[in-house]
Amino acid sequence: MKALIISGHNFEDSELLVPYYRFLEEGIEVQIASSQAGVMRGKHGYEVEAMALAAVDGKEYDLMILPGGKAPAVLRRDEVVLNLVRYFVTAGKTVAAICHGPLILVAAGVLAKKTATCHCAVAKELQRAGAHYLDQSVVVDGNLITARMPSDLPGFMREIIRRCQG
Amino acid sequence: MKALIISGHNFEDSELLVPYYRFLEEGIEVQIASSQAGVMRGKHGYEVEAMALAAVDGKEYDLMILPGGKAPAVLRRDEVVLNLVRYFVTAGKTVAAICHGPLILVAAGVLAKKTATCHCAVAKELQRAGAHYLDQSVVVDGNLITARMPSDLPGFMREIIRRCQG
Repeated sequence: MKALIISGHNFEDSELLVPYYRFLEEGIEVQIASSQAGVMRGKHGYEVEAMALAAVDGKEYDLMILPGGKAPAVLRRDEVVLNLVRYFVTAGKTVAAICHGPLILVAAGVLAKKTATCHCAVAKELQRAGAHYLDQSVVVDGNLITARMPSDLPGFMREIIRRCQG
Repeated sequence: MKALIISGHNFEDSELLVPYYRFLEEGIEVQIASSQAGVMRGKHGYEVEAMALAAVDGKEYDLMILPGGKAPAVLRRDEVVLNLVRYFVTAGKTVAAICHGPLILVAAGVLAKKTATCHCAVAKELQRAGAHYLDQSVVVDGNLITARMPSDLPGFMREIIRRCQG
């Protein structure tokens, strides 16, 4: 089992750190990747090292996490990210996005007729993408898991880990 | 089951956030407390709300977490913290400290003849307190669980959660 966390500068620190360490606790290998290799800094200041997405082989991974913060607004314009998301969704691999992370799902065009949630500030973008938006802590629809904000992390991680163990 | 996280300004962000959300994922109630009530800021910049330790009733809690960062160097001079640590240890409740967190155990005088670990920078303080120091990811000795640094969080949380489930 191997997880891929995709984010960039100004990620929401808790939404990257909590899944990262949770996977390792569970014995799941985890890799952080971004548009470019190097150190990226969370919006609160935490720094983590990322590998370049161009060097990521999607086939090696079983699930993808898209944390929130300000990073998704930039990542959604990166075709490498969007193609990887489309590949994961098509291959039936789990894609879990929280807060502003679902904006990347919108840009990848994978939300039509799907039930999902996100940060309330971008709920309209989900709806315009054809998603059935729910203001609910965690929403699971097929291989998509979405949540709204850091305080939803406990339920978000519960669903993700359940998926990994199932 | 109820957990108490004790820290203060300049806590190591990951060592507070990861246990906090992990407890909630597990359905364990968790409270953050500090010498004074209010917002405290991690050394990387994350802000969390703490209640005053003076208002904490130790009897309500089953385990205590002492994250690292720069907070323990201040907390170890707070007699309210030290008395609470002594009460937990005497009552056989789990006390888990990581990084510079074990400095609080040193000050509370609960490490004599105990096997423990901590950040390498303060290993000598543990030894002077009569502890048998091990440079090992996670050390469990009775109801004490200690670890060295953020990268030890996976094993640290594994031991803590196992204790909660046991």
